[in-house]
Amino acid sequence: MLQSKLFTKTRKEAPVDEVAKNARLLIRAGFVDKLQAGVYTYLPLGLRVLKKIENIIREEMDNVGGQEIFMPSLQPKENWLATGRWDTMDDLYKVSDTSGRENALGPTHEEVVVPLVKQFVSSYRDLPFSAYQFQNKFRMELRAKSGILRGREFMMKDMYSFHTNEADMMAYYEKMKGVYARVFERAGICAKTFLTFASGGSFSKYSHEFQTITPAGEDTIYICDKCCLAVNKEIIEEQKNSCPQCGGRNLREETSVEVGNIFELKTKYSAPFNLSYKDEEGKDQTVIMGCYGIGLGRMLGTVVEVLGDDKGLVWPESIAPFAVHLVELGGAYDATVRAEAEKIYNEFTSADVEVLWDDRDLRAGEKFAESDLIGIPLRVVVSAKTLTSGKFEIKDRATGEVSMVDHSELFKIRHSKF
Amino acid sequence: MLQSKLFTKTRKEAPVDEVAKNARLLIRAGFVDKLQAGVYTYLPLGLRVLKKIENIIREEMDNVGGQEIFMPSLQPKENWLATGRWDTMDDLYKVSDTSGRENALGPTHEEVVVPLVKQFVSSYRDLPFSAYQFQNKFRMELRAKSGILRGREFMMKDMYSFHTNEADMMAYYEKMKGVYARVFERAGICAKTFLTFASGGSFSKYSHEFQTITPAGEDTIYICDKCCLAVNKEIIEEQKNSCPQCGGRNLREETSVEVGNIFELKTKYSAPFNLSYKDEEGKDQTVIMGCYGIGLGRMLGTVVEVLGDDKGLVWPESIAPFAVHLVELGGAYDATVRAEAEKIYNEFTSADVEVLWDDRDLRAGEKFAESDLIGIPLRVVVSAKTLTSGKFEIKDRATGEVSMVDHSELFKIRHSKF
Repeated sequence: MLQSKLFTKTRKEAPVDEVAKNARLLIRAGFVDKLQAGVYTYLPLGLRVLKKIENIIREEMDNVGGQEIFMPSLQPKENWLATGRWDTMDDLYKVSDTSGRENALGPTHEEVVVPLVKQFVSSYRDLPFSAYQFQNKFRMELRAKSGILRGREFMMKDMYSFHTNEADMMAYYEKMKGVYARVFERAGICAKTFLTFASGGSFSKYSHEFQTITPAGEDTIYICDKCCLAVNKEIIEEQKNSCPQCGGRNLREETSVEVGNIFELKTKYSAPFNLSYKDEEGKDQTVIMGCYGIGLGRMLGTVVEVLGDDKGLVWPESIAPFAVHLVELGGAYDATVRAEAEKIYNEFTSADVEVLWDDRDLRAGEKFAESDLIGIPLRVVVSAKTLTSGKFEIKDRATGEVSMVDHSELFKIRHSKF
Repeated sequence: MLQSKLFTKTRKEAPVDEVAKNARLLIRAGFVDKLQAGVYTYLPLGLRVLKKIENIIREEMDNVGGQEIFMPSLQPKENWLATGRWDTMDDLYKVSDTSGRENALGPTHEEVVVPLVKQFVSSYRDLPFSAYQFQNKFRMELRAKSGILRGREFMMKDMYSFHTNEADMMAYYEKMKGVYARVFERAGICAKTFLTFASGGSFSKYSHEFQTITPAGEDTIYICDKCCLAVNKEIIEEQKNSCPQCGGRNLREETSVEVGNIFELKTKYSAPFNLSYKDEEGKDQTVIMGCYGIGLGRMLGTVVEVLGDDKGLVWPESIAPFAVHLVELGGAYDATVRAEAEKIYNEFTSADVEVLWDDRDLRAGEKFAESDLIGIPLRVVVSAKTLTSGKFEIKDRATGEVSMVDHSELFKIRHSKF
């Protein structure tokens, strides 16, 4: 894509009312725009990242047999009364129409998915299966101040699994731990992300969260480095300040953000809707459920918090808006530079490498600062100077390493490093 | 995909409270589920169709330089007061949080996109451009009875274009007519879809709709067959019952549904938000806008209304959930049949042909009826009988034509016919 065509621009300063690092950098770089507290628009660059995160998650969910669906936000009050959450969930948006009919604005979808699958489940032969969606969720956060880490409106992947018995659910639940670890690995935050034991509520001893260490987080976790897992502060006393796996008490405290969570729901939502099946003896049994969530915006914001530096955003290539930032210097006045840039642009594009081509008439310093701010993994400079040398100047955004390479090396490096 | 793994099932009967043909067929075939009037879940098969429609539209919008973004549903009351629509739009959902802050639940996004782009537009050099999104919209339809043709919650593509002057906007607007025609052509409904002159409101003489002829529609149009265009009933008197192009009075009346519309907004929304730019002389000028909408669910429902027959759904391959329905007969008991079906399944899959493999243990009649109901373009039968003959039985869902072909022909037919 030609940068001169991009309708967004970078900014020197973030809005004064924006305190979170993730939102400040993302707004300055033109990735998101704040409509109001906790409510953001994804601009072209930001949406490209969000879609890449979505695709990684979709691939991983499909790999474990997840079937994608799309459920509504307008959810009948009756369904929420059935689970008791109409009156107990503080952050539930409620919306009425002029006829007085009331709806919840979905913050989660148990109240929709359970009555939905009830129509299709009658026998043990219809189980197990799992269904997931990517859906805009709504939560009435009164003090949304963490940028896109905690929104009033946010994109979420929520998956629900349905089983004949607890052992089957637990086997799937264990498998999902690995799936989630792979998602965070592919998005470049695995080194700072820990499987964390958290409160299971009334239906099970634990739930599990994936917590990423960052000072921007609102959670506190205690990490057992021996077992490479953590305990959420909410249960650390009950856990007697020890690791649930090895029992060790050598735990370090960290501030973190929850990027994913998985719950053994068991019969918590299947029972209220009487979601049952006939077992092999023809006896009615309640379906056992699990659920598995990842907030996409929160994951994007966490990558920014963890990898972003004082110059701006730093994207791992897996979710970068573009793989290459082609920065042309003087191309507006120098036909040879423009032609060389166009040649490289076309070569990358033909090789299915996504390139943002900075074809604008700006000073080198301005272009380089903006390139660092946007954070595309590989910067390639084409200028009168590089042309004379017969080489290209490349820069690795993450390490800052700059080198001069010739044409054949350029394509080799692109493929080996990224 | 293996049909035995699909968690949805077909139904013999549609729900009694569902009157629209589109929703009755889509529910029976397991493509959608009705949560409440005008609010539907897309199930795996239905979502595959919706995503294919989305991808066709995305390709066409990208081709005319559209830049994809994603704007929020929770829109501040102030923005809607600025355009005067907070009090005048009857079907606007309004939602308050406990602090009393009010929001519109976005039925359209002029109130968001104009303040958004205002941050990036200062000079004539920043124009023109266009931005679009796929977004769940909300409209308080009190009598939603047309299935997915008219929802209270529905997926829409809305694009907004921004220009320095009317001539530039009109050139883009004219181009969009062709783009829309191509979208409907690719989705298989071009023969019944007419560019229709409609009311332009206070800001221009006409707007243009794309109306598809179907008895399920709620609109009436008058078609001039000579010019291959139509006039909406709302302006036919003002138009003196004549074609706006040739002036002819030989018009035929039809019932139709609006599948897309385009508007010359001019300064209708840029003026209230003071969206302006400096022209070449440094003088402030108001930005000129156009907008362009397509309802994805409505388009899907229209395809069902137009192409569906008494046996069920009929999908054009461009938007079919799968290209091939592989129906295995007796595979549960006959290892040779199962092996042959698996071989064909793998061959198609390797060739990137999407296949739904009916591997279930059901009677042939039941499988065929379901296959017709689901409406995948090409049905391929593998059975003991076809194995003996050394051929496969294929059926074209749209024409009903059945024939026997050998292995090499099967793949040739797949590629030439579809």
